[in-house]
Amino acid sequence: MNGRSKVYVEGSRADVRVPFTEVVLSGGEPAVRLYDTSGPGSEPEVGLPQLRAHWIAERDIEAGAVLGAEAEVGAEAGAEAGAGVVLGAGAVHGAGAEAEAGTRTGTEARAGAEEGAGTDTDVERAAGTDPGTPIGTIEHQGVQLPCRTQLHYAKRGVVTPEMEFVAIREGLEAEFVRSEIAAGRAILPANVNHPETEPMVIGKHFLTKINANIGTSAVSDSIAAEVEKLTWAVKWGADTVMDLSTGKHIHETREHIMRNSPVPIGTVPLYQALEKVNGDPVELTWEVYRDTVIEQAEQGVDYMTVHAGVLLRYVPLAADRVTGIVSRGGSIMAAWCLARHEENFLYTHFRELCEIFAAYDIAFSLGDGLRPGSIADANDEAQFAELRTLGELTHIAWEYDVQVMVEGPGHVPMHKIKENVDLQQEICGEAPFYTLGPLTTDVAPAYDHLTSAIGAAMIGWFGTAMLCYVTPKEHLGLPDRDDVKEGVIAYKIAAHAADLAKGHPGAQAWDDALSKARFEFRWQDQFNLAIDPDRARSFHDETLPAEPAKTAHFCSMCGPKFCSMKISQELKEYAARGMAGKSEEFAASGGRVYLPVVDE
Amino acid sequence: MNGRSKVYVEGSRADVRVPFTEVVLSGGEPAVRLYDTSGPGSEPEVGLPQLRAHWIAERDIEAGAVLGAEAEVGAEAGAEAGAGVVLGAGAVHGAGAEAEAGTRTGTEARAGAEEGAGTDTDVERAAGTDPGTPIGTIEHQGVQLPCRTQLHYAKRGVVTPEMEFVAIREGLEAEFVRSEIAAGRAILPANVNHPETEPMVIGKHFLTKINANIGTSAVSDSIAAEVEKLTWAVKWGADTVMDLSTGKHIHETREHIMRNSPVPIGTVPLYQALEKVNGDPVELTWEVYRDTVIEQAEQGVDYMTVHAGVLLRYVPLAADRVTGIVSRGGSIMAAWCLARHEENFLYTHFRELCEIFAAYDIAFSLGDGLRPGSIADANDEAQFAELRTLGELTHIAWEYDVQVMVEGPGHVPMHKIKENVDLQQEICGEAPFYTLGPLTTDVAPAYDHLTSAIGAAMIGWFGTAMLCYVTPKEHLGLPDRDDVKEGVIAYKIAAHAADLAKGHPGAQAWDDALSKARFEFRWQDQFNLAIDPDRARSFHDETLPAEPAKTAHFCSMCGPKFCSMKISQELKEYAARGMAGKSEEFAASGGRVYLPVVDE
Repeated sequence: MNGRSKVYVEGSRADVRVPFTEVVLSGGEPAVRLYDTSGPGSEPEVGLPQLRAHWIAERDIEAGAVLGAEAEVGAEAGAEAGAGVVLGAGAVHGAGAEAEAGTRTGTEARAGAEEGAGTDTDVERAAGTDPGTPIGTIEHQGVQLPCRTQLHYAKRGVVTPEMEFVAIREGLEAEFVRSEIAAGRAILPANVNHPETEPMVIGKHFLTKINANIGTSAVSDSIAAEVEKLTWAVKWGADTVMDLSTGKHIHETREHIMRNSPVPIGTVPLYQALEKVNGDPVELTWEVYRDTVIEQAEQGVDYMTVHAGVLLRYVPLAADRVTGIVSRGGSIMAAWCLARHEENFLYTHFRELCEIFAAYDIAFSLGDGLRPGSIADANDEAQFAELRTLGELTHIAWEYDVQVMVEGPGHVPMHKIKENVDLQQEICGEAPFYTLGPLTTDVAPAYDHLTSAIGAAMIGWFGTAMLCYVTPKEHLGLPDRDDVKEGVIAYKIAAHAADLAKGHPGAQAWDDALSKARFEFRWQDQFNLAIDPDRARSFHDETLPAEPAKTAHFCSMCGPKFCSMKISQELKEYAARGMAGKSEEFAASGGRVYLPVVDE
Repeated sequence: MNGRSKVYVEGSRADVRVPFTEVVLSGGEPAVRLYDTSGPGSEPEVGLPQLRAHWIAERDIEAGAVLGAEAEVGAEAGAEAGAGVVLGAGAVHGAGAEAEAGTRTGTEARAGAEEGAGTDTDVERAAGTDPGTPIGTIEHQGVQLPCRTQLHYAKRGVVTPEMEFVAIREGLEAEFVRSEIAAGRAILPANVNHPETEPMVIGKHFLTKINANIGTSAVSDSIAAEVEKLTWAVKWGADTVMDLSTGKHIHETREHIMRNSPVPIGTVPLYQALEKVNGDPVELTWEVYRDTVIEQAEQGVDYMTVHAGVLLRYVPLAADRVTGIVSRGGSIMAAWCLARHEENFLYTHFRELCEIFAAYDIAFSLGDGLRPGSIADANDEAQFAELRTLGELTHIAWEYDVQVMVEGPGHVPMHKIKENVDLQQEICGEAPFYTLGPLTTDVAPAYDHLTSAIGAAMIGWFGTAMLCYVTPKEHLGLPDRDDVKEGVIAYKIAAHAADLAKGHPGAQAWDDALSKARFEFRWQDQFNLAIDPDRARSFHDETLPAEPAKTAHFCSMCGPKFCSMKISQELKEYAARGMAGKSEEFAASGGRVYLPVVDE
């Protein structure tokens, strides 16, 4: 695409190289750099380069000095997570590797710690981090556990290369990124086993992010198709992707997605756990679930949806709803709780999950299993009861320096949207909110990317950090590649509209550049700046395909005589020349107006 | 479409028959009746039946007794408007026809006047109507002028058949409709020469309406294509249609549109006037414009956009904008004002326009010629200066009992939307607001139906009465039939989302019915209730086309095992049966769950 290209901006070290889409303009303006999620491009069978491998290894060497080889995570699990994980393509890291016991090698992290630590906010919120505990570990009940999270480093004042990367990406100071993560207001999802990611940050003071869901189902099941959807999603702007596969070959599908994804990958481990017990929720156990989490942690999943807030006593609250429980995970856990008359095992084992998540740097996405699935059910007691439990769990996760975001609805009419954000932010200590839409009406199946883009834009403006897309197929079928694109574009629009309304610094420059190009009839610039250059160009060319139309001062919408922009631009030129004494000039031009003259 | 059909609800007289789309449901629920704009269906070459002809004639007979045949409108115009207009298909009406001088024949209007007149609000606002002046006339400077507007009747306390029609359509009391119109808070656009319309009302206390723009341009010019777009627009839900033709055969195109339109038609007479002076704005005169207005009034145009607020002194305010003047009409009038150094003739002749509009019952749509065309220009001084003038003109129109709505932007970021409504409502005495979008970002050409549906939903919620659609082709080309549908559906969604948020009585019943059908896997009901049954059905069938899938308790999105609705519905049934003592029943069923049992 002429005029658009990928460029990299280098940070303080040569391996911090931040991608942008650069649009070169023909009007003499500086080039515009747009946020670029598309990644370096991959051969599906080879996978992506491991951008972060060295950064992770550096930190682990340092921590390894403290932990030794015997550190374990997952109390009863026998998980090998903390004890040396071999990445797909060679980078060895993990506790105990290459580091001399008792010596903290590597200087960057320590230097950062000395320089950046200790704002009041950080200290107040850093309950989980004993400043006396060596970096890379966290102490719980007298045991030192590995802790490799970005939150952990941020609390210790360390600006990681990942943080610097996102700072450049967002056009903000690295120290600001660190402090937002340290405060729990933002997360940087980055499993140590997913070094392919280009770091990104999710938080209300950053650009609003969007997630695209992909994944197989029992009736539509092709690994190649899912990798293609992933690539398509990030091409159009997905900031993270969730693999919600429930079809065959869940592990293998995910492996292909992980190795080809330049963005963080989220999952709902419950789906695969359910497969392991042949689809019977009642047979689920904590042990099966935990092992599934570790399996996925090893593959590099960056955040996991955990429906730990669906408590036994909340289930009856959903009984009289119009649409009951519409979260897959929520309905599975509700079935489990009711059948066994026991409390949700995700809730009772939550601290063990925190230990695992800390070791890999997996972020919690606390699932809203009781989110409303219809306008009628919005903002009801079932929903808000669960939210209060998610608030409790948020603070527990922070004790372990584990990053947390909190999921939100769903289906909500416009006048009830703001309450969702306000309550979540209050109850969950400003942990990032991550909502599905919300859909603002139920009546438009086949257009729910649109019913929900309305709600998503608004909830983004009100402070939601990431918007989970909805495709036109929602409620009707599994999205294909085209649906993925429609969903991603709708949500990029919603997210950008939110950024404008939030007043994110720099957001409006994109609009201004495009509008200026439009007013000046620089069609190619307008197309290149468009969120979807291909479609903008093809729509224009449907009626005026000829090359000269690309420089014409009109389009087929109004035709040449009724183009307000043309008239208005000529007015502007006229005003610039002064509004009097130009009659002769006009007469000389012979023009039949659109260069209006003073009539005397 | 099985399960969907058109039904009519009869009012207090047999010729008040209000159409609805009735959806019969299979779950035992009462049928759902949806607002239906599609009209009775027409043969393009024959035109529609004249639903309102008799109602108009009745009123004119009454008024004719007073006016006699000599009444004239349009001071210097020699307009024949008030003096007997022959409708396309035979109904003769107008002053002086069939009525005996000095006698008020017909009883309905008078009866209504005696019963319904005189709420405080009406009296306060009825400055233009001297209660001593006979109905059907208005006195100005000692001259009695014909006045056939719904506002006029409403102020006199008359509930017209049109008002009763819309009351049934909206599910509200007829007296409420009358009082809203009398107060100027709502308009019922209904040119006496457009008897084909099924009456509808535009006001913030009614269902939010949408307008679809159609019309030829110089480079795309087919009458048949425009009539097809009209029919397509009302099929999908357009409440009014604007014919913005600027191509060849403007008069003939409009005639075909008028005679086939069951919804009010709006125009911008300036476009045709400009054609009459060969496209040179400087050659425009009041006389050419006035004659164009009368020509269109005779054809039956129901509301006209008049850019009377673009004053000479405001034009320089737009000079430094990013996108100058983006309204066609605004740019034309700005060119005229600047070139002649004279005040806008639409402003200086506004009272003459009021006289013409009163005689035909044409509503003003006061154009916002200086609306912002980019995020950068939103809510600026040019825009709000013009708005203050539109407020002044609103009150002048009301002196003549002429119905008024006021146009609004445009391109506005979300955080600046509410101010637009609040200011307009304050300045314009709560006259209905009619906005184009607004687009909430400039960066998505080819998706501006979506960027603007976000703004439209919000501005509708805040009190905008009608939303002018934007199609995916906006800024790029003339919309075709498919684009018209995309625009209409996007705006029906926005309008309905606004109705839900406004708490319009009855709005949510549609959502509830659809969600209940969804939860109960009544797929056919869900499709029939959908805003676009065709597309909902076809999306579903893409992956599960077989007929049995129409009763399946899942779709391809999640497949049978992961359908939360299925699990949740079974939970609900389980809860209904009582949560204990059902183990045996479950065991007997042999089921591998999804009917969870108590585990002991």
